[in-house]
Amino acid sequence: MRPNNRSKDSLREIKIEINVSDYAEGSCLISYGKTKVLCTASLDEFVPPFLRNTGKGWVTAEYGMLPRSTHTRMPREAAKGKQSGRTVEIQRLIGRSLRAVIDLKKLGEKQIIVDCDVINADGGTRTASITGGFVALYLACKHMEKKRQIKEFPITNFVAAVSAGIHNNAAILDLEYEEDSDAEVDANFVITGNGKMVELGFTGEESSFTEEQMNQMLALGKKGVAELIEMQKNVISHNG
Amino acid sequence: MRPNNRSKDSLREIKIEINVSDYAEGSCLISYGKTKVLCTASLDEFVPPFLRNTGKGWVTAEYGMLPRSTHTRMPREAAKGKQSGRTVEIQRLIGRSLRAVIDLKKLGEKQIIVDCDVINADGGTRTASITGGFVALYLACKHMEKKRQIKEFPITNFVAAVSAGIHNNAAILDLEYEEDSDAEVDANFVITGNGKMVELGFTGEESSFTEEQMNQMLALGKKGVAELIEMQKNVISHNG
Amino acid sequence: MRPNNRSKDSLREIKIEINVSDYAEGSCLISYGKTKVLCTASLDEFVPPFLRNTGKGWVTAEYGMLPRSTHTRMPREAAKGKQSGRTVEIQRLIGRSLRAVIDLKKLGEKQIIVDCDVINADGGTRTASITGGFVALYLACKHMEKKRQIKEFPITNFVAAVSAGIHNNAAILDLEYEEDSDAEVDANFVITGNGKMVELGFTGEESSFTEEQMNQMLALGKKGVAELIEMQKNVISHNG
Amino acid sequence: MRPNNRSKDSLREIKIEINVSDYAEGSCLISYGKTKVLCTASLDEFVPPFLRNTGKGWVTAEYGMLPRSTHTRMPREAAKGKQSGRTVEIQRLIGRSLRAVIDLKKLGEKQIIVDCDVINADGGTRTASITGGFVALYLACKHMEKKRQIKEFPITNFVAAVSAGIHNNAAILDLEYEEDSDAEVDANFVITGNGKMVELGFTGEESSFTEEQMNQMLALGKKGVAELIEMQKNVISHNG
Amino acid sequence: MRPNNRSKDSLREIKIEINVSDYAEGSCLISYGKTKVLCTASLDEFVPPFLRNTGKGWVTAEYGMLPRSTHTRMPREAAKGKQSGRTVEIQRLIGRSLRAVIDLKKLGEKQIIVDCDVINADGGTRTASITGGFVALYLACKHMEKKRQIKEFPITNFVAAVSAGIHNNAAILDLEYEEDSDAEVDANFVITGNGKMVELGFTGEESSFTEEQMNQMLALGKKGVAELIEMQKNVISHNG
Amino acid sequence: MRPNNRSKDSLREIKIEINVSDYAEGSCLISYGKTKVLCTASLDEFVPPFLRNTGKGWVTAEYGMLPRSTHTRMPREAAKGKQSGRTVEIQRLIGRSLRAVIDLKKLGEKQIIVDCDVINADGGTRTASITGGFVALYLACKHMEKKRQIKEFPITNFVAAVSAGIHNNAAILDLEYEEDSDAEVDANFVITGNGKMVELGFTGEESSFTEEQMNQMLALGKKGVAELIEMQKNVISHNG
Repeated sequence: MRPNNRSKDSLREIKIEINVSDYAEGSCLISYGKTKVLCTASLDEFVPPFLRNTGKGWVTAEYGMLPRSTHTRMPREAAKGKQSGRTVEIQRLIGRSLRAVIDLKKLGEKQIIVDCDVINADGGTRTASITGGFVALYLACKHMEKKRQIKEFPITNFVAAVSAGIHNNAAILDLEYEEDSDAEVDANFVITGNGKMVELGFTGEESSFTEEQMNQMLALGKKGVAELIEMQKNVISHNG
Repeated sequence: MRPNNRSKDSLREIKIEINVSDYAEGSCLISYGKTKVLCTASLDEFVPPFLRNTGKGWVTAEYGMLPRSTHTRMPREAAKGKQSGRTVEIQRLIGRSLRAVIDLKKLGEKQIIVDCDVINADGGTRTASITGGFVALYLACKHMEKKRQIKEFPITNFVAAVSAGIHNNAAILDLEYEEDSDAEVDANFVITGNGKMVELGFTGEESSFTEEQMNQMLALGKKGVAELIEMQKNVISHNG
Repeated sequence: MRPNNRSKDSLREIKIEINVSDYAEGSCLISYGKTKVLCTASLDEFVPPFLRNTGKGWVTAEYGMLPRSTHTRMPREAAKGKQSGRTVEIQRLIGRSLRAVIDLKKLGEKQIIVDCDVINADGGTRTASITGGFVALYLACKHMEKKRQIKEFPITNFVAAVSAGIHNNAAILDLEYEEDSDAEVDANFVITGNGKMVELGFTGEESSFTEEQMNQMLALGKKGVAELIEMQKNVISHNG
Repeated sequence: MRPNNRSKDSLREIKIEINVSDYAEGSCLISYGKTKVLCTASLDEFVPPFLRNTGKGWVTAEYGMLPRSTHTRMPREAAKGKQSGRTVEIQRLIGRSLRAVIDLKKLGEKQIIVDCDVINADGGTRTASITGGFVALYLACKHMEKKRQIKEFPITNFVAAVSAGIHNNAAILDLEYEEDSDAEVDANFVITGNGKMVELGFTGEESSFTEEQMNQMLALGKKGVAELIEMQKNVISHNG
Repeated sequence: MRPNNRSKDSLREIKIEINVSDYAEGSCLISYGKTKVLCTASLDEFVPPFLRNTGKGWVTAEYGMLPRSTHTRMPREAAKGKQSGRTVEIQRLIGRSLRAVIDLKKLGEKQIIVDCDVINADGGTRTASITGGFVALYLACKHMEKKRQIKEFPITNFVAAVSAGIHNNAAILDLEYEEDSDAEVDANFVITGNGKMVELGFTGEESSFTEEQMNQMLALGKKGVAELIEMQKNVISHNG
Repeated sequence: MRPNNRSKDSLREIKIEINVSDYAEGSCLISYGKTKVLCTASLDEFVPPFLRNTGKGWVTAEYGMLPRSTHTRMPREAAKGKQSGRTVEIQRLIGRSLRAVIDLKKLGEKQIIVDCDVINADGGTRTASITGGFVALYLACKHMEKKRQIKEFPITNFVAAVSAGIHNNAAILDLEYEEDSDAEVDANFVITGNGKMVELGFTGEESSFTEEQMNQMLALGKKGVAELIEMQKNVISHNG
């Protein structure tokens, strides 16, 4: 039995509250069960050097965890003077995922920085960051469209992410922390609104898995992302 | 006229929501108007080296701002690889202020780390951090008392903080960002529940002020802190 | 047509030269075509703090590129004062992959550090590092067995890695740099000697792909790894 | 009784030796008793980025302690790779204090960097740095005036600083190290030549104090600064 | 007796294999016995700031050791986040030595970066780096001459380096690690093709030596360098 | 003609003022003409890890320049967050030189840290640091002997250092900044009280020199050091 009697192919309770920031061009607070991530999308008039004078824009992401978002307090990365390998890996993944669904030429020579800050961590912070980060990015683009800072809406598709894993030999969807730390295999799926794959990662830390298990996890991931994208569409449609 | 028709000696709307973190021993989300700070107090079984085997404990604080807590996005300190001078100055102030109202011997050889993370910044983030940080610290001590991790309750007094300043030649209480960036003089008051001073700082950046103005600001600060401590007492009394 | 008339499902020329280091407990120089990586496995009597007094050992990996292993010289990470996100991501992947095929209890409270240093880079440096890193690790364990530093041989399986991708709409195996920089999708496969999966990663940078394409790449990956493991077995059998 | 039979409201012996540097535009060696600080003011043709093309100049300060300026040797900050929070706090204070008495428009688009390096530390290094830093800044401006690098003399007022504290329940002026480390309350006063306040800071580390005590310290601070400004005027009048 | 019955005034076996890098403008792999250094010379179109618009070029060097080039594994400098004092000292020496034999005006406003990466260390890595670094630099200049990127060949002389020392009271040439760690005095000689001195360094770590011993070492150094330069000339004459 | 009509083989005016620090176990302020270095020797009860439980002590040195010790202000190394290669090279040289004249076993398991801080720089700061650093070290050992912290006086010999160079084709002693920046060859000599060599370094930056020139410089260096050691003996004999 999963915690809260959840079935193997169910998501946790998902909530997306939009426009939570007073200043960001786009923002939301997303929850996957007890995991809560604040996502803001900020417009920056400067693109990275390799894009200057190309007419193309950029989308990048940064990820952080508040020190007591976790069961035991984690040292603050700013105080340690560097971001951990895990942080860097996650923020690179978020950035690549979001760039897969935006036409950077239509964005023009501007940068959007999506910050994903974990307020409470209970497993799935990277997938919640992608799903929520997309909402913040979408809202920022809508804001820019309204302000006539862009000519054409640059978002080409929806994108969301979810985890799956093998736990006690069974494939399960959207692992929470307790399940995650016990899982034999851990997988993450980033999939678009028309069912195309953006990033798939399967990791058997100190373990391995079969192709059949891989396919079971993939089926769960597709189901989970489809549901998440419905929720994204729903909240976005209520944006004034 | 101040924004929202506030009178010169009024605080902004103050809200303190307690026990907002699933994991921290004590926590609150404090608002001074649009300024919002998440404060968590975490118990750490290890004290700093200079206190080992002394029987005395320690309270320290860390401060951070989310990148888009501000009007324009600030670079993330973890990405830059170091904390700014301003951050270090503020977290040292919070730590000193909280240590003034706790008996470190009663705490025993334990450390409590108070994290103050600014979700939204509209002036007064350091004073809100002290007022909210105290609430988190108080709740953490109550939690430890209940768990019998301490024998005697170590908190000796309440403490809260507020700013005042000289703006358009008049002394005003609890400045918001727009006022703060225009103010001729900026002051911060950290005062205890029995009206004793813990830290007073008056700063005339590129300017100076008279002793009379100093006394006007001090009067406002005393009034503001007294009101804040009433609110602290009120929310704490509702802690289950 | 691929460079050198290579067919879509062919590996580049693979070479593995063993025992190339005078000092390392295990070592090899591995080539995937023009990509060359020097892999050394070093025994360290100290395990990381979280394993002290557990009786369990650890395997970790570090990855680096010589400054002129690339077409244009890259700044030296030691001179810049930090490892890039890409470096950290790759060395975490190598470490996880190797830990999947070793019984850390049989290793005992020892650490083996596998260094993968790229001498020449022409695509596939991370997959060559895993395949070569495994050979170095295997030889180090053999060395320790001979010296009676371990009681039981701890390696539980072979492991190797290869890339595949979608290039001009076709799935191809083991991409070299020129192909890689043009590919629509990039995938990496870490698979064991008995055909079980350890790590699978599919990345459509600024693009997406179908499930059918995913399966084509996976088929290539399985074929490629099977061939690589044959070569590993062959060179190891010649170790004196 | 204070060391050397000093009365409660007396400064230590103050010495200011000017033009001690062969190269700096302005310099002095200031002593407050055994505390000795070398202050140099250096003209820099470049202003910080936020002032470019504004016609305004800037004054900034840096502070350091020689490793054996203290009773026990302190690690060198350059070797540790970062400045402590205390160092950053002090140099920000010195910079703000000096900017309060200079008209940055009259300075023109130039920067003056005031370096305060502690040769010997016996309490009061930050206040000696402000008093001596002002003398160095003044002399540098005189030098620039003579060289016709500025049109109008930009200094608008004198400024000096001194500490006071509560020690054995009595307010005392200009604490030396032995007193400082025992003091219940520590205060610093930065006051101009016409008696206006620039920075006042009262700190009751792990303690608190009354408004009456605050006023006693303030009275001492005003007296001490007035005497220090007389000495500044005296040495400056002897500058050739 | 020296290892391998080497006589006191003999070099170890020297090998220089040229053009070992697929990408570098010039490269070689040099061996002094078991010491092996990979040297690459990379053309960089940008000179350091102090040479911009002067028409003069620059030659600089960087030095690194692979983690397991040594008997016991050394921590990777990129992972530690800084280069050791020894590394910095050696790369400054290599750069100065190479700049002594090139006409920077003839090079034009270009930079050549010589990377010396130690694959295997058995004493004498800095001298092998200079001798091999010169070969890489020479070949890079030949490459640029052929590509008409320079008008005149800028190399003005050959240069090579060797160590000598006092070991068991006798002067010996080209110390290997075992001798080096026992030697009373250690010396390094950088000498040109026409017998002029470029850098001479004599170091009696925790010891001292006489002028006569100095002259014995110098005689060995001159003999060793002369032989090394013959070998450089020989390999370079075979460059296609 | 040299500045101040100095002859080719003359030192600048040398001054050594001892016991200038209130706290250091040994100290002096040394001048070579306008070059001034404050040298302090501090006793530290802890030796570096590699010497623990060996009964042997250690002497190490650190070197720094005050920001405005130079003609144009240099950025502070503490603010930049790292020591330059030049700083590291110099402090390693000072440490090696001092360790050559002390019996580390007689010192016992203690460390002496010699800090050399340049107050004013006019050429020769590293040689003045060695000469003055020795005086500080000697006085610290005398202090420890008097306090019975050591049984036998551990200093085995005097040591001092001076520079020489080739300037306008002539060998000259003890170069000041103006000469140094023009010199074709630069050399440094560290020699003991009985005329034995400790460190000799000859550097022809972007140039080379003959053996005859080397011998001319060496003769000057020997003469200069002999005179410096006379002065060391003289000031030390006046130590109370």
